[in-house]
Amino acid sequence: MPDDKKPLADPIRAGEIRSFGKIPSPKLTPDLLELVRSGEVYSLEQILEPGMPFWEGHPPYVMAPYMRHGDMPELSPASVGNEITSLPIHGGTHIDALSHIGRWKDGEVELHGGIKVKEVMGREGMSVHGAENFPPIILRGVLLDVAAHKGLEVLPDSYGITGEDLAGCAGAQGVEIAPGTAVIIRTGFAKYWRTDNQRFSNCGAGPNIDGARYLAERKIALVGSDTEAVEQWPFAEDGPPLPVHTFLIVENGITHVESLYLERLAKDKVHQFLFIALPLRIKGATGSHIHPIAIA
Amino acid sequence: MPDDKKPLADPIRAGEIRSFGKIPSPKLTPDLLELVRSGEVYSLEQILEPGMPFWEGHPPYVMAPYMRHGDMPELSPASVGNEITSLPIHGGTHIDALSHIGRWKDGEVELHGGIKVKEVMGREGMSVHGAENFPPIILRGVLLDVAAHKGLEVLPDSYGITGEDLAGCAGAQGVEIAPGTAVIIRTGFAKYWRTDNQRFSNCGAGPNIDGARYLAERKIALVGSDTEAVEQWPFAEDGPPLPVHTFLIVENGITHVESLYLERLAKDKVHQFLFIALPLRIKGATGSHIHPIAIA
Amino acid sequence: MPDDKKPLADPIRAGEIRSFGKIPSPKLTPDLLELVRSGEVYSLEQILEPGMPFWEGHPPYVMAPYMRHGDMPELSPASVGNEITSLPIHGGTHIDALSHIGRWKDGEVELHGGIKVKEVMGREGMSVHGAENFPPIILRGVLLDVAAHKGLEVLPDSYGITGEDLAGCAGAQGVEIAPGTAVIIRTGFAKYWRTDNQRFSNCGAGPNIDGARYLAERKIALVGSDTEAVEQWPFAEDGPPLPVHTFLIVENGITHVESLYLERLAKDKVHQFLFIALPLRIKGATGSHIHPIAIA
Amino acid sequence: MPDDKKPLADPIRAGEIRSFGKIPSPKLTPDLLELVRSGEVYSLEQILEPGMPFWEGHPPYVMAPYMRHGDMPELSPASVGNEITSLPIHGGTHIDALSHIGRWKDGEVELHGGIKVKEVMGREGMSVHGAENFPPIILRGVLLDVAAHKGLEVLPDSYGITGEDLAGCAGAQGVEIAPGTAVIIRTGFAKYWRTDNQRFSNCGAGPNIDGARYLAERKIALVGSDTEAVEQWPFAEDGPPLPVHTFLIVENGITHVESLYLERLAKDKVHQFLFIALPLRIKGATGSHIHPIAIA
Repeated sequence: MPDDKKPLADPIRAGEIRSFGKIPSPKLTPDLLELVRSGEVYSLEQILEPGMPFWEGHPPYVMAPYMRHGDMPELSPASVGNEITSLPIHGGTHIDALSHIGRWKDGEVELHGGIKVKEVMGREGMSVHGAENFPPIILRGVLLDVAAHKGLEVLPDSYGITGEDLAGCAGAQGVEIAPGTAVIIRTGFAKYWRTDNQRFSNCGAGPNIDGARYLAERKIALVGSDTEAVEQWPFAEDGPPLPVHTFLIVENGITHVESLYLERLAKDKVHQFLFIALPLRIKGATGSHIHPIAIA
Repeated sequence: MPDDKKPLADPIRAGEIRSFGKIPSPKLTPDLLELVRSGEVYSLEQILEPGMPFWEGHPPYVMAPYMRHGDMPELSPASVGNEITSLPIHGGTHIDALSHIGRWKDGEVELHGGIKVKEVMGREGMSVHGAENFPPIILRGVLLDVAAHKGLEVLPDSYGITGEDLAGCAGAQGVEIAPGTAVIIRTGFAKYWRTDNQRFSNCGAGPNIDGARYLAERKIALVGSDTEAVEQWPFAEDGPPLPVHTFLIVENGITHVESLYLERLAKDKVHQFLFIALPLRIKGATGSHIHPIAIA
Repeated sequence: MPDDKKPLADPIRAGEIRSFGKIPSPKLTPDLLELVRSGEVYSLEQILEPGMPFWEGHPPYVMAPYMRHGDMPELSPASVGNEITSLPIHGGTHIDALSHIGRWKDGEVELHGGIKVKEVMGREGMSVHGAENFPPIILRGVLLDVAAHKGLEVLPDSYGITGEDLAGCAGAQGVEIAPGTAVIIRTGFAKYWRTDNQRFSNCGAGPNIDGARYLAERKIALVGSDTEAVEQWPFAEDGPPLPVHTFLIVENGITHVESLYLERLAKDKVHQFLFIALPLRIKGATGSHIHPIAIA
Repeated sequence: MPDDKKPLADPIRAGEIRSFGKIPSPKLTPDLLELVRSGEVYSLEQILEPGMPFWEGHPPYVMAPYMRHGDMPELSPASVGNEITSLPIHGGTHIDALSHIGRWKDGEVELHGGIKVKEVMGREGMSVHGAENFPPIILRGVLLDVAAHKGLEVLPDSYGITGEDLAGCAGAQGVEIAPGTAVIIRTGFAKYWRTDNQRFSNCGAGPNIDGARYLAERKIALVGSDTEAVEQWPFAEDGPPLPVHTFLIVENGITHVESLYLERLAKDKVHQFLFIALPLRIKGATGSHIHPIAIA
């Protein structure tokens, strides 16, 4: 979407580096419309609430009702309620902006497209690749239910999903991992959401670097999962930290959607759909909460 | 959408009171699909950033990048950025939950459906009509560009839009205000967004009670505008406070979408479209920020 | 201290109800000066930092350095750092305001002095008994090292300290529990601060109702301890919740200082001292963090 | 105060660089005790409340009562209130930590003592010169009522106080600016606190670099004022930004206490006193709110 309000940041000359990498400008094309059969809508968001899992060190979740109905009698007979809401963006169902992940190179950190972090990071956040640049996301989506494909309720803790796993799953479930697709991987880890937060946050199954390469080669638009990170967690001991995030986001401009709720979609065996996510345009932020949907 | 995860709160017996009033369960029906012609997507969200307008007394906007790339050398060669984000829900582009507005009756406050506030309000917010119950919102939308209809760039400060204004505008612009529609009213006040915040927040044009009655009679699904309140502001001196909010939200279950960005839509004279908004499921909250879109 | 800036709230007619109960107006009298021998100063505050214990359900601790040195080159050659700081008042070393605790009576909650909560509680906090009314606190202090008196490093989990314990300890340590004294009780629980937070927060030794009565009868000014609550925790199963807080704060206007650091004081066997605490004047708040000191 | 809990940060080898510069280890010496005559206590803190002045760009003030009496019926007959409290440290009565101000040198920022900022700044704040190192502050204090000395209610906007002004004032008011003193400068600007916040924040009278040099030569312990910055504001156009902060804090280790309430002290013409301030030990923070007192 050529944003008509905000010029692209200087370092991003149109056409050279794109702020959201492989996510295309939004258009509801005839091809996408063909994905809609019954018109049934699936909500893919986990509820934001106290007790939801997220990594230690993340900022706190706050939903504090400071203004209660009855507080402002001067508005009578009307009455208003309001709250303080502080949401830890990288906990709960969210999308990573490309500014979330960088890579050290020659003594400094670079973001996707070779942007040098020190030139774009400040007290108002990131002046490039921030969440305000997110276009509405309207894509063909496929569900790769890897857990079901392996005959499991949930994948084993810290299981590393390979390219072969993804290829086998796609084949068995009859979907193609085509360029421009939102690939949604189900591990079954939603089972631990609020029932075993430590396990949800620290032992997630997810693509290993082989699985990530497989996806990048197919030129997908984004990858999502029902885990806290779209990445085998902890990552392999003999490799570098966060290899999948680094490879997909920094090198390939393929961003992540995390902590999705996929149970209803899986139960109905919906493997192909119209995928819509509408990130909030939070200036300078490294991501946004979203309420994504699948339309079958 | 019959939510498969969260049972409806006790006081809301299915079929008797609906948590989002006139917003229907989401389904992308053939009728809605017919609204899509070019497939062009319009973003209707204002950017969330320092300096955006919102009423005094609302909680603060915070976007503080506390974790910067380079802070965690133990992750090298990867690098992570993160922020504290606190968003004042009722400032910026957002939707009101039905729990946002109540009405005094017999010495206590009632919400839509006769829910007594004192039974549902606590330190975790509202146990009924909270934002977590929002379904994905997929509706026929119409733009009533009242400013353009009157030949103005912006409506006069505090102008009260009447039923006759709305009827005249719909007629001239060739759209029907049918049941189940998202009615989006353009006043032109986006012109004052960040250029004259005091005016934006304190002098908004909007429906008066006559305009609100006109909309309710047509059984619309929701009403939105490019102002901070979908309501003439300040409200008429000889009447009660917040008459439009009270009438539409409490009495009719017709909620509000506020601070929309409608300039591109207006410029292209798009008066009918597919309207999609996906509120975050923030448990107990009185609303949610959204990034709504129109698809023409 | 007759506050020269802020008139006492209406419901508190001077001389009838005092906003800080038994805490006297501050004056450094000759009697207090006599307590100073060596002039040695002991800091009684635990450090506020991530990983410190506090009860679940309390608001989050946030210390996020959003503005870093180097962020504002326009100030060069000067440079400024700043942070977002959110402190959960009732975690860490703090003092309870009298507005922190109430008691149900005839279907409504009353604060100390019979103040009806519903008349004084609103979106800006408590209009009476709020922390802004705290005077500087300058008192004779005594340390009752109950753990040492019993020959223990730490009192047993959930131990209820009785009046007899306090009397015995005071006698053995040669101090008098005189009217107007700040009575500081050492349980040894600081050992669990950050080493076993669950135990610190959920199993604290502290006065039971018998111990509380003993203190109130002696007309002390306030009571402090090295635990999260000045109260046996959990409280006795066959009694009401929070009996000590209710009895001391609501009925007697004797407030609490919690999570004190007393190890150096205990090591030096300093049992009598000049006690100074200077609560922040946070309008409407139910308490304040403090950095209390003992001067021997 | 040799802190018995926390070892000094590595870069600060005891005796070489002191984390609080000229503030001495606390001891209530006979010399200090002699300052106490009547024992009268003066509170020097402004109330923390909505509507108080602080610079734009500072983090927000939040005091939101999220947990109200009556919310937890399971505690009946007891009842508890609590709040979210977020205090902008550098607004309201506070003390700057030495980590608050740095100076560019050879392409990087240095703090007091030549500490290189890039080695000590991270997501948990400053690992040296943070507020947790503040000792209790117990000093001889003098009030230099420059406004009264000049026969004015308030000094002119942006007036730069010179060394000659300070010397003249001290002479006329009969106090000596001796080494180790807390020098408290009264400008009268408290008059604009909450009555003209723009003026309070943007036009403060304060020492210019000449005044600052005069103070540093006398080896004072700290300097405070009734303005938002202890510095002529805006600073002289032909000089560098923040010259006084840089000179006193970075070069001399003389920190600042800001936004003091001095009206009662001035009215009673108390020019010499025992000064006590007890900063909160907030790990890594660049300052702390305080409730300082003067005892006459």
